[in-house]
Amino acid sequence: MIVVESGLGKFEMKIIDLRAHSIAIADPPLRSSYGLHAPYALRTIVELESEDGIVGISETHGSDAIAKAFHKLRSRIVGTDAYRLSGLLLPMIDTSAAGADRSQTRYVPGENPADEAARLYSAIEIACLDLIGKSVGKPVCDLLGGRSRSEVPFSAYPFYKHSGGGGEGADARPDEYGEALSPEQLVLQVNQMFAKYGFREIKFKAGVLDPDKEIETVRQLRAAFGPKIPIRLDPNCAWSVETSVRIGMALREELGNGGYLEDPTASIPGMAQVRRKLLDIGVTTPLASNVAVTSFGDLPESIRTDAVQVVLCDPHYWGGIQQVQHLGKLCHTFGLGLSMHSNSHLGVSLMAMAHAAAATPQLTYACDTHYPWQSEKDEVVAGGRVPIVNGCVKISEKPGLGIELDYDQLARGRERYTRCEYRKRDDEGEMRKHVDSNWRRILPRW
Amino acid sequence: MIVVESGLGKFEMKIIDLRAHSIAIADPPLRSSYGLHAPYALRTIVELESEDGIVGISETHGSDAIAKAFHKLRSRIVGTDAYRLSGLLLPMIDTSAAGADRSQTRYVPGENPADEAARLYSAIEIACLDLIGKSVGKPVCDLLGGRSRSEVPFSAYPFYKHSGGGGEGADARPDEYGEALSPEQLVLQVNQMFAKYGFREIKFKAGVLDPDKEIETVRQLRAAFGPKIPIRLDPNCAWSVETSVRIGMALREELGNGGYLEDPTASIPGMAQVRRKLLDIGVTTPLASNVAVTSFGDLPESIRTDAVQVVLCDPHYWGGIQQVQHLGKLCHTFGLGLSMHSNSHLGVSLMAMAHAAAATPQLTYACDTHYPWQSEKDEVVAGGRVPIVNGCVKISEKPGLGIELDYDQLARGRERYTRCEYRKRDDEGEMRKHVDSNWRRILPRW
Repeated sequence: MIVVESGLGKFEMKIIDLRAHSIAIADPPLRSSYGLHAPYALRTIVELESEDGIVGISETHGSDAIAKAFHKLRSRIVGTDAYRLSGLLLPMIDTSAAGADRSQTRYVPGENPADEAARLYSAIEIACLDLIGKSVGKPVCDLLGGRSRSEVPFSAYPFYKHSGGGGEGADARPDEYGEALSPEQLVLQVNQMFAKYGFREIKFKAGVLDPDKEIETVRQLRAAFGPKIPIRLDPNCAWSVETSVRIGMALREELGNGGYLEDPTASIPGMAQVRRKLLDIGVTTPLASNVAVTSFGDLPESIRTDAVQVVLCDPHYWGGIQQVQHLGKLCHTFGLGLSMHSNSHLGVSLMAMAHAAAATPQLTYACDTHYPWQSEKDEVVAGGRVPIVNGCVKISEKPGLGIELDYDQLARGRERYTRCEYRKRDDEGEMRKHVDSNWRRILPRW
Repeated sequence: MIVVESGLGKFEMKIIDLRAHSIAIADPPLRSSYGLHAPYALRTIVELESEDGIVGISETHGSDAIAKAFHKLRSRIVGTDAYRLSGLLLPMIDTSAAGADRSQTRYVPGENPADEAARLYSAIEIACLDLIGKSVGKPVCDLLGGRSRSEVPFSAYPFYKHSGGGGEGADARPDEYGEALSPEQLVLQVNQMFAKYGFREIKFKAGVLDPDKEIETVRQLRAAFGPKIPIRLDPNCAWSVETSVRIGMALREELGNGGYLEDPTASIPGMAQVRRKLLDIGVTTPLASNVAVTSFGDLPESIRTDAVQVVLCDPHYWGGIQQVQHLGKLCHTFGLGLSMHSNSHLGVSLMAMAHAAAATPQLTYACDTHYPWQSEKDEVVAGGRVPIVNGCVKISEKPGLGIELDYDQLARGRERYTRCEYRKRDDEGEMRKHVDSNWRRILPRW
C-alpha cells in the first residue's frame, strides 16, 4: 500500500513471498578446461513480492541444492522490509575471517560450496534492489550512488565448441555458430558475434587445445581484428607455471595491449610465480583471475604477492552489487584493475550485471557475457532478449533492473528443468559422456 | 512533484537549490597537540532543495574557503537528480592514483587542502541521501543496504581543558565541565559525561601534558572506571617513536583491553616503527590512526608495513557514507579494525555519523564525538539537541537523517559566524593568543 503523507511518499515495503524457480536453458557444447557444457544450463529465477504487489526479480546459478537453500532461507525473508533485508542478511557473507582462503580451482562457478552464502545473498540483494527501484521509479544503479555510465560495454566471448546449438531431441536449438575447433573457425565465430552485437573487445576461453594451437588462434584473432581490439585469454588453470610463462612471452604483444592473461595456472602462489617470471623477462601483461581470487578473503595474499593485477568481479558470487562496489573501490585503492566474469545466463542476469557495472566506476574492461550463446526460445524477460547494440547494454530510465518476467516463458523453463536429467553442473561428466569416456580434468594439463 | 503512476511512486528528484550556511558555534578551550580550540568552531550547514520542495541537509567543517568551494560547486548541482548526484560527482574523489600519499600531520581536520574534494563530496552525498530518504519515507542507513544496528554507541571524549565554556563576551556559555589540567580533574570530567550520557567507552585526547602525567591520567581513569571500560588514547603525533614505545609499554594493560593507541607518532613509517618495536617487547595494543591514514591512498603502505591496525573513518572527510561502507569492507578484508573520528559538531553531523555507523557493520568501536562539548544554545536541529541515552544515538523510523533544521537557530549561527573574527580553524594561533605567545606545534614534542 502506498501512502502519500504531506507531500512525502511512505512505502510499506514488507516482503510477503519469496519464490525461487529452477529453470533449464539450452546451452551449446562449449569447451573449457573444466570440460564440456551440458545441453542445458541450470539457472534460478528469484521473485520477491512486497505487500504492495510489486515484484523484484533476480537470476542466479541453478541446481537442486540451490533451490533447497532458497527454500530454507524463505522464513528469514518473509515479513521483512526490502530496505533492510540485505543488511539483515549481511552476516551471511561478512563473517568470514579476513584472509580466510576460499580460493579453489576444482569447482565450476556456481558449484563451489564456499561461495554458497554469497550466491544466495546476492540473489536476494538484487531482487530487493529491483523491488525498491520499481517502487520508487528509479533504476537500480541510481539507488546506489548513481550511474557512472549509461551504456555498459560487453565483450565477445568465443569458445572452442563442438557442433550443436544446445538442448536435446525435439527441443534442440539451431546451431547458430557451428563447430569451432580450429583457429580459423574461432575467427569466424568472433566475426559473426561482432557483426551481430557490435562488440569491441574479445574474451577468449582457452585451455582446450594444445597451447601452440591456442597461440595460433590468438594470433589469427589479432590479424583479423587488429590491435585496437583488446584480447583477454582465459585457459582456466590448464597450464603449468612454465607453460604460462612461455605463452605469456609468446603473446606479449597480442595480450599486452589492453588485454590480459586470466588464470593461466592454478592458485595464488602459482599465479605469483608466473607474474615474477614474466616480469623477469620484461613481459608486463597483467594477470587476471576469477579462479585463484573469487572472494574478499583471497585478496590480501594476492595483493601481498602481486599474484593478480586484474580481479574479475561477478555480482552473482561476490555477494551482489554493493559488494562489487566495495571490490571496485578496494581494487582502485591497491592499483588493481577490475573486470567482470560471466556464466551461462539469461537477460535478468545480464541486466543485473549491467547495473552493477554502471554503479561501479572502477570497472574498466568490457564485461564478459555468455549471452550470445543463449537463445530467444529460453529467454524469460518479457518482450524477449535484451538488446546488445554497439557492444553495449543500455541502462534506461526504467525502474529497477528495467525488465519484467514473461511468466509463460518462465513456466517453460521450469518444465525443461523438470524434464532434463541435470541436477547440477558437471562439465567433467559431460565430457566423458559425449567426447572421451576416460576424460579427466588434469591440472596442469600442459 | 510526486506522481503516482499505476501503483508505483515516480519521483522527480531534481535539485533546484544548494544553500551552504557558514555558522559559528561556541566551543570550550579544549587542548590537543594542535594547540587550543578557539571560542567558536566553524561549521557549514548544507541544504539541497528538490523541486518537490523537500530539503535534504548535511553538516561539515566550516571556513570562508569551504563556503567559497560550495559556491563554486553550485552550478554542477542545480538541475541534477539527487539519485544520480553523488555518482556524477564521484570522479571528484575517485581519481587519485592508488598509493597517492595524502597522509599529513600539520593540518587540523577540515583544513587539509588534500581532503577538500572529499569533504565537499561528502556533504553533498549526505544531503542527497537525506533528501531521498525524506522523499521515500526511509531512514538514510536503510537506503544503503539496511542498518546493522539501531542503537549506535558513542564514546566519552575527555580533553584537557582550560576553564571556560566557549563563546565570547555576552555570548559566553556556562563552563559545564570546568578546568581539567590534572589527572584528578580529568577523571571528574569523565564521571560527569558518563552520568549525563551513559557512555561505556573512553576516547581520551592526550599529547598535551608531560607524558608521565598522561600515563598517570590513564591509570586514574582505569582505577576509577574499571577494566570493562575500554580506553583509547590519542596524542595526535606528539611523541617520538621512543616515547610512543615507552608509553605503549607502560599502558599495555590499560589500553590493550579493547582500547588502542591512536597516532602516538607522526607518519606511516613512524607508526610502523612503533608497531614493530612494541611487538618486539610483546605489547600487542593496536595502533589506530586518523592522522597518518586519512584517505584510501594511505592504505596500501599502511597495510604493507603494518603501521596501523585500526582505521578511524569519518564520513565528513573520507567522502561520505558509501565511502565509509567501502572502507569498512576493506578493513575487514585486511583484518583491520574500524573506528570513527569526530570534530566539534552539531546534531546534523551526529545523525550522519550515526547513520554511517548503522550502515557499516564492520565498525566495532563506539564512535568518537565532541557533541558533549557543544551547547543547546548553538544546536540547529529542530526540537533541540539529539539525545544520547545509554551512550547511544537511536536510529528511528524517521525518514532521511531523522531531523529537520530550526531556521531561527540557523540564522543565529550565521550571525555568530559574521560577528566572530575566525575565518578558519587555527589551534596553533589560538594557543599563542591565550596561553603562550611563543607556542609552536613541535612534533615530536616529547
